[in-house]
Amino acid sequence: MEKVSWKGGALLAPLPAVMVSSGTLEKPNVMTVAWTGIINTQPSKTYISVRKSRYSYDLIKNSGSFVINLVPSTLVKACDFCGVRSGRDIDKFKFCNLTAEASFSVDAPSIAECPLSLECRVSEIIELGSHDMFLADIVSVAVKKDLIDQNGRLALEKAGLLAYVHGEYFTLGKKIGSFGYSVKKKRKPNKVKIDKSKKS
Amino acid sequence: MEKVSWKGGALLAPLPAVMVSSGTLEKPNVMTVAWTGIINTQPSKTYISVRKSRYSYDLIKNSGSFVINLVPSTLVKACDFCGVRSGRDIDKFKFCNLTAEASFSVDAPSIAECPLSLECRVSEIIELGSHDMFLADIVSVAVKKDLIDQNGRLALEKAGLLAYVHGEYFTLGKKIGSFGYSVKKKRKPNKVKIDKSKKS
Repeated sequence: MEKVSWKGGALLAPLPAVMVSSGTLEKPNVMTVAWTGIINTQPSKTYISVRKSRYSYDLIKNSGSFVINLVPSTLVKACDFCGVRSGRDIDKFKFCNLTAEASFSVDAPSIAECPLSLECRVSEIIELGSHDMFLADIVSVAVKKDLIDQNGRLALEKAGLLAYVHGEYFTLGKKIGSFGYSVKKKRKPNKVKIDKSKKS
Repeated sequence: MEKVSWKGGALLAPLPAVMVSSGTLEKPNVMTVAWTGIINTQPSKTYISVRKSRYSYDLIKNSGSFVINLVPSTLVKACDFCGVRSGRDIDKFKFCNLTAEASFSVDAPSIAECPLSLECRVSEIIELGSHDMFLADIVSVAVKKDLIDQNGRLALEKAGLLAYVHGEYFTLGKKIGSFGYSVKKKRKPNKVKIDKSKKS
């Protein structure tokens, strides 16, 4: 076998590295997490896993809300900074030139510079060891208008999001497929030819 | 405000689209999921959220194990296919030219063509609505030898993984930073010069 076996480790990739805002509009905080994902479609549910020691932990636990802000690669430095520095020591919004704005549905503020924000209300906290998992309902989604095309479709590929792979940040590259494309029937190209011949 | 508010939706991105293998080496199955993530570091824990109607659901529930196989962009077509066709109707390993191989630590088989596999043992199942969340311990990780560099470091960036963004598959682009780079002190180039002068 050409594989070796290592002990268990958190080696899932690529992951979203997202900036999670919490607290209030007057006293906002932001931290970066990669331990996040969608856990349910109907109703829409997500989670973030957070160490008890983090400054955001109590802010989220006490208010019951947080916002997951998707991160474009242009904000990679702020994203990284908000994952390694604590809101106990520094105003990360200010330091990173981020703007806190009121969310539509929750008390926790959102980040104006991020293209899409998931506004979340905590439904359950599960202790797992190093981290506690905050399960949450995605109560609404705030989207920058310029990501919505003329047909009302979300063109999220235009957001230039970053991906996190085993301690490194990457841009997204080229599109290589769409959900379901592997089973789509191809249109027969000769149909067009036949139509043409009819016209001539 | 330049944002509009939509009702809650599963709009987290980018996500890993992973091929989850289950069953046995003799009768393996594989399905693709994007509802996955790391939920705890110590001990390493992950999850997948699965609809009860899926063929893999009972396989995983009954055996208590599954394997998350990371997907390189070269396997995008198989990855997509395994997300839209059911193992009830077709042998997806065979159809997609995938090879089931024995895992190191769990009964569920792994996919030989995938560069890294997380071998998982289910610890809890939580019903959430459309999906059930399978919480699991990552009991071991199988890594292709050619992803391990001469220092024993995992060079996961060489795996050419794909990312899933709102119904579309993307390659990863260029590296734009490493965890902690925003706060790293730059080495002063003249320090090297001083050390050199001491020696001479």
